[in-house]
This record gives sequence, structure tokens and C-alpha cells, in this order.
Amino acid sequence: MSSDITIRSDVASAQTAGNRKFIEPAPAPVGLRPDDVVLTGDRPTGVLHLGHYAGSLRTRVALQGRCSQTLLIADLQALSDSSGRASHVAAHVEEVALDYLAAGIDPSLTTIAVQSRLAALAELTVLYLNLVTVARLERNPTVKAEIEARGFDRDIPAGFLCYPVSQAADITGFRGTLVPVGEDQLPMIEQTNEIVRRVNRLADAGILPQCRALLSSTPRLPGTDGRKASKSLGNGISLGASATDIRRLVHAMYTDPGHVRASDCGRVEDNVVFAYLRAFDPDTDGVAELERQYAHGGLGDVTIKRRLEDVLQQIIAPMRERRALFARELSFLRAVIREGTERADAVTHDTLRRVRAAFALT
Amino acid sequence: MSSDITIRSDVASAQTAGNRKFIEPAPAPVGLRPDDVVLTGDRPTGVLHLGHYAGSLRTRVALQGRCSQTLLIADLQALSDSSGRASHVAAHVEEVALDYLAAGIDPSLTTIAVQSRLAALAELTVLYLNLVTVARLERNPTVKAEIEARGFDRDIPAGFLCYPVSQAADITGFRGTLVPVGEDQLPMIEQTNEIVRRVNRLADAGILPQCRALLSSTPRLPGTDGRKASKSLGNGISLGASATDIRRLVHAMYTDPGHVRASDCGRVEDNVVFAYLRAFDPDTDGVAELERQYAHGGLGDVTIKRRLEDVLQQIIAPMRERRALFARELSFLRAVIREGTERADAVTHDTLRRVRAAFALT
Repeated sequence: MSSDITIRSDVASAQTAGNRKFIEPAPAPVGLRPDDVVLTGDRPTGVLHLGHYAGSLRTRVALQGRCSQTLLIADLQALSDSSGRASHVAAHVEEVALDYLAAGIDPSLTTIAVQSRLAALAELTVLYLNLVTVARLERNPTVKAEIEARGFDRDIPAGFLCYPVSQAADITGFRGTLVPVGEDQLPMIEQTNEIVRRVNRLADAGILPQCRALLSSTPRLPGTDGRKASKSLGNGISLGASATDIRRLVHAMYTDPGHVRASDCGRVEDNVVFAYLRAFDPDTDGVAELERQYAHGGLGDVTIKRRLEDVLQQIIAPMRERRALFARELSFLRAVIREGTERADAVTHDTLRRVRAAFALT
Repeated sequence: MSSDITIRSDVASAQTAGNRKFIEPAPAPVGLRPDDVVLTGDRPTGVLHLGHYAGSLRTRVALQGRCSQTLLIADLQALSDSSGRASHVAAHVEEVALDYLAAGIDPSLTTIAVQSRLAALAELTVLYLNLVTVARLERNPTVKAEIEARGFDRDIPAGFLCYPVSQAADITGFRGTLVPVGEDQLPMIEQTNEIVRRVNRLADAGILPQCRALLSSTPRLPGTDGRKASKSLGNGISLGASATDIRRLVHAMYTDPGHVRASDCGRVEDNVVFAYLRAFDPDTDGVAELERQYAHGGLGDVTIKRRLEDVLQQIIAPMRERRALFARELSFLRAVIREGTERADAVTHDTLRRVRAAFALT
């Protein structure tokens, strides 16, 4: 495929500068094989925040160049519970791609593709629906938990019930072997491998590889208010946050409501400031010492918040710059998405051809 | 689209002869509009039989040239309950197309297309899954009844539960306005129109037409053994049945087990021979008179079976000839399917483009 992406020198230098800053800290995940195919992505329901950076983006940056990697912007999956917010979802496809580039994703090493433009994934989904029972989908703990969390009850959209199947289509479409997930998403991997085994049995050949979970070692980062961080609650710190926003958000962070004076003993568990310090402060011994002081009394909230603010300003500043730069280079951004999606289209259609043959469809 | 179908003169003359024989008997359905778009089809799980001919094929022949019509060979839908019989399904795609041509379908007037080769239908299905709840699908009486009939219970494949959605994708993909169905399939039409209204609301424009049911006036023809005619039970008389087969099947037909001697009173209800005579004998007054005689006693099974055999031999002979002719012209048959599918691909992709826009996917 001939490239029509011309990286202008300022874009290229921002990219190189960005990679220098972010690739270094994260080591290669344990158990990674050079021939691994990593498939992961995000629903474009909002911009990404530090929780995404801590939990997955920096791992993805670390994976670059060490294996094949595709980031799928899952706009169709976002519609499975947000069909009323279609234009919101559409508007966030480019925002999420910007966040990827801001975090240090290099499009020459990682494919960025848009799910809804990959017809083969829809065809795989429709084929796989024949291999999974309704009862099996209803037992899926992830679906169960998400149904409860969203209060859908029995009136869940069929697309939501079927979303583990669509996810299996995504993973197998790229013949993914390694899927970064949280503990709670392990049943998805299991469901995917069940489908893989059924397709291989139909084909009487190993046309699809089974996949392994790449579990994140970072605990889930809470939102600034102590609740679960969520794109819709707006309680995350975005990768493009201004210096003023960072200051404001850090100083309004939930700590320990019982810790009124600096001399009071304070709780470090459920304390959002410490959760962020543990995730981002490179001086882990220093953070542990602060935790001890805070718990025994004698350390004020303002002190720890100032330290956190310094850490976050340092981490976010280059991401914010890169994000602003690529946001001005919309034609570059769109070429990245278009070329990535074209590459992904070729790969997934090749998989579809094999799976169709397993179903005797030629 | 340039045509690479060259109808050889013998094929063409068989076609013309066939049309003369079959178009005449069936009048245009009541309520047909010249701008109607008819979408109908069959699952390729076996060859078609006289039940299909009486219930739908002859109506389709009558519709030809009076409106736009597409026959969809629904191989994907067949897989929703037969994924273990994939090669059986694949092998019957051409068989069903042969049955269409045998029955008098003229590929220059009617589009014959294969569902699994229409990627846009899978994409529409995946989009529509977001517009229908699981509870709504479970309430669908057709799905309920079919689940009971097939004994799937809760272990139904997800593809089977979702098949009204896939059917809505088929109908709307062609922007169908008239769908020939049995009474029992009316809920499908309702489900499709619900989806149509939701898509139009999302689009804030009437991008999809609502569809109407074209109810068959012919009661469902039983199998030769008196049970429901089914491709899998093998109790139908196929359109390519040999003269010997027709004779054998008619003379083994289920009549009235209490009607031992010709002089006995006989039941005409549940009597398969009379069901077929009512469906196919052009002399309806004669059949009504025979029914009276049979009920009062004095008419033997052999007499009515001989009459039915004559009628069926006359109806099937030209279909058998046409079927054999097209079966020898496999390259013609394949070109018919390929060109029909290409036309259908263009139409359904045009619909998909409109529906994607409604979901803000561009």
C-alpha cells in the first residue's frame, strides 16, 4: 500500500520527542512473544483521560515495535448502548485518535482503525451469532455486570447482549493473540476462545489462533471525585487538560473527609491523591514515605496535592502539546485513520475469507 | 452493469415456453402497486416442492414484470439453525436457484441473489441490533413458535433469536414495500416496520419505506404423509420429480384411514389428495363435486389419486424439463446468480449508506 501520509517535520519531531518521553518508563509486558498480535481499543464516547493512560495507553506505547498492534476505535460497539447519541460517538472518533497520538502512539508502528468501516467485522459477527447460545451470552458475567450497572434489565438492546460476539469478531478478525484487559473482562477472552474452537472445528483446521489476556498490573484509577472514572461523569483528567485545569482538578480531589487538620491521622486507602501518586510519581519510595506520614498525622492535603500537581503537569504537558499539534494537522490525522483502516480492512477480509470457507460459504 | 449472460437459444426458448405456461394462471395480487418492491426468498436447506409452488412460487411468477422483485436465497439465515450443516446449505444454493428457473422465474425480470454474499445486509443487521431489545425479540411469536417446534428452548443460537432483525435487514436493504408471507409471519412485518420507524426517526427523514404483507390466499399444502410439508422430512413432491416418483408419491398419499371400501363415507378434511386437488386442479367445480361424492360414499381412493396424478404430471413435466435444461447450463445458472447478486449488492449498499448516515457514520 503506498503511503500518502507525509509527516511534516514539526509533526515528526513532536512524534519523536513524544516517543522518547513515553516509551522509556514502561517495560515490555511479561510473556510477550515477538509474533504476538495485540488487539485493543476504546469506545469513542468521550476523550481519554489519565485513567486510560495509566491502565492501558502506556502499555500500548511500550508494546509498539515489539509486536504487531492494532487499536480499534469501537464506534459500533459504542452504539450498542448509545444509539441515541450517534453524533456524539461520531464526533469522538477523531478525538480518541488524537488521544492515541498524544499518548505517544506512533502510526508507523501501530495500526489505528475505525470499527464501523470494517465490513468484515459485521460479517464475522453475524456468522459467529450462530455459534453461541442466548443462554451462554446471558451467563457472561461481564454482560451481566454491565446490564446491572446500566440498569437495562431485560430491555437491553440485542446489540448489547451480543456484544461479546462482536468483540470476538474484532479479536479474531485481526487474528489477535494477546488482548489487554482488566480482570473483569476475562470472560470475554473465554467467550472468544470458545468461538475460535468452534470455527476451527467447523473448518477442521486451526484457521484462528486462540488469544491470551494481557492483564493490567495497574489498579483501576478512580475519578477525581473518588467514584469510578467515567467519560460520561467527566471526573477524569484528560490528556489535553490545560495547566489551569490540572491545578483546579487536583486541588478539588477527594482525599479523606475526616482529615481536617494537617495534624489529623489520614486514610490513604480511597484517597484519590495517593491513588494518582502511586500511579504516576516515579519516586515510589518517596510516595510510600508520604503515605506513612499522612496516616500518622502531620501531613496536610495541600502538600500532597502540590506534589501530585507537579507530577501531573510534567506528564501531561508534552501530551497536551502533541495533542494540540495533531489537532491542527487534521489532514495528517485523517490520513493516519484512513490508512490504518485500509490495512485493517485487508487483514479482516482475509480472516473473513477463511471463516466463510469454514461455513462452506465461498 | 454490462451483461455477460448469453442466453443460448434453447435456454431462451425453454424460458419463453415456461413463462407461457406458468404466468397465465395466477392473476396479479390485489393491492399491488406498480412501484412496489417485492422481497422474498427461501432458505437453501433442500430443494423446493409443490407446497412452495402453490404457496409462493406461482405468485412470484405472476408478480414478474408487474413490479420490482428480488428473490433472496437466504443461506446465512439457514445457518442460524443449521451451522452444523453448512456444506448441505451451500450445496443447495444452486438447487434453489434451479427451482426458481424451473418454476418460471425469468432472471431478466426478477433478481436472484445470495444473502451471504451481500455484506451490506450483515452491516445493517449489526446496526439494527442496537434498535431492538432482547425482550422484544423473545416476545416475537414467530421466534417463540419456531423455538418450540425445534426444541431449542433457552439454548437457541443467538443468531436464531436475532433472525427477525436479520430479516428486517433483508427487507429494508432492498427498500422492500411488499413482502409475501404466511399469516404466521405477520409479526416479522411488524418488527421490520418498528425498525423502519426507528431508523427514520434517527435520520429525521423517511429514508426507509414501511412494508406491507402480501398474504397468500392458498392454505398451506400438507406433506404427502399428512404432516407439515418439510424439506427435511422429505414429504414434499419436488419440482424436478420424475413421472415415476410422482406416481409413487401420489398413490402412497395419506387419505382417510377409515375409508376402506369405495362405498364407505370418506373424510375430505385432512385428506391430502383433496388438498392437492384443490390447490392444483384447474376444474374447481369438478373437484367440489368429487368431494361431495367422496363424503357420501361411492368414490374410491384410486380414482381420486389417478385424477391427481394426471394433474400433477401435467404441472410438473415442463418444470422438470426446464430444471434439467438449466442444470446442464451451469455456467448460465451461475451467471444469473452472480449478476443478480451484483445488482443486489449495489442496491443494499446504497441503503446501507443512508442508514449509516442516520447513525452519524460516514
